[in-house]
Amino acid sequence: MKDEKGILFILSGPSGVGKGTVRKALFDQDPALAYSISVTTRHPREGEEDGVDYFFKTKEEVKKMIEHNELIEYAEYVGNYYGTPKTYVEETLAQGRDVFLEIEVQGALQVKENFPEGVFIFLFPPSLEELKNRIINRGTEDQSIVRNRLYEAKKEIEMMDAYDYVVVNDDINSAVRRIESIVESEHCKRERIASQYKKALGSVDL
Amino acid sequence: MKDEKGILFILSGPSGVGKGTVRKALFDQDPALAYSISVTTRHPREGEEDGVDYFFKTKEEVKKMIEHNELIEYAEYVGNYYGTPKTYVEETLAQGRDVFLEIEVQGALQVKENFPEGVFIFLFPPSLEELKNRIINRGTEDQSIVRNRLYEAKKEIEMMDAYDYVVVNDDINSAVRRIESIVESEHCKRERIASQYKKALGSVDL
Repeated sequence: MKDEKGILFILSGPSGVGKGTVRKALFDQDPALAYSISVTTRHPREGEEDGVDYFFKTKEEVKKMIEHNELIEYAEYVGNYYGTPKTYVEETLAQGRDVFLEIEVQGALQVKENFPEGVFIFLFPPSLEELKNRIINRGTEDQSIVRNRLYEAKKEIEMMDAYDYVVVNDDINSAVRRIESIVESEHCKRERIASQYKKALGSVDL
Repeated sequence: MKDEKGILFILSGPSGVGKGTVRKALFDQDPALAYSISVTTRHPREGEEDGVDYFFKTKEEVKKMIEHNELIEYAEYVGNYYGTPKTYVEETLAQGRDVFLEIEVQGALQVKENFPEGVFIFLFPPSLEELKNRIINRGTEDQSIVRNRLYEAKKEIEMMDAYDYVVVNDDINSAVRRIESIVESEHCKRERIASQYKKALGSVDL
């Protein structure tokens, strides 16, 4: 129905679970989804583009956005800031389009405070041993950062209870299919749409 | 995960909305779903088979099942009994298989009392005018039954609030796809599966 607001979906999960890869595959399949690009102060990884994967900013720039209340969530994670610009999210939802955030767990919990009606999806590793290997083998960071990430990953998994759905990333296509099912089924949720259907009842003589 | 119980899905909606057609198309697509066959005292319609579409019973037989508490729901609807045998549902769920009920609205509300953890899907007509035409043009009943059905349909739509999802039957394939999405996404619901994932955390040294 056309006067339905868009739904805010939040894809999150522990470091190393493959959030970025799943999000990219999802958007390749479904270009109608609006992806909210985060700001970050971390350095671009190989292949990452400014304005596509992230807006790469200085710490001073991000601190200014926080002061001006321009982020719906932000987090300092392994020494860097990550945040989600507010205006884009609100305007896109008002237009009736779904918005998709791919963010770290700390940030997701802040979004939940500001947008409790959002749909929170926790991406889970196929096995915890494999998550451990992925974090260790990322290779771009030194040992203390790896150790820190493993600890953060465990803490993040323990925060699963704040989420609506858990999707296992055992296979990218399966994970994407499950997320697409969640998007479709959320649009069928009775509490989102029942009032519109009931309105129609008044206009027909049954 | 293998120790997960099956989920009970209830497809319901107003008379004439096309529940039977959608249910058949769904089962053609997904033979793994277990369909619970209802008992009824109404006469078979053209093409309906005993033991496939319904178990056709006498009123005396159904009354005896009710007395012995062998039905998880039953309803008298336009002069006939409809009911769902209990044992089959419970045993199939315990085996980890999903069970799918296609029943009238009165019955669905009774199932909700006995199985509040069930997933309740309300099939909605593409328009109320079309529902009216479908009921009028069913042709097998006399005018007073048609009038009664229209009145029941309106009352049934007003009961939508007891349901979890509303699926519009604008097109059979779309309706089936939406229901399949609901089935898949319900299996990703955090409250159903988080405890199993968290158990895994204890067994790995992160």
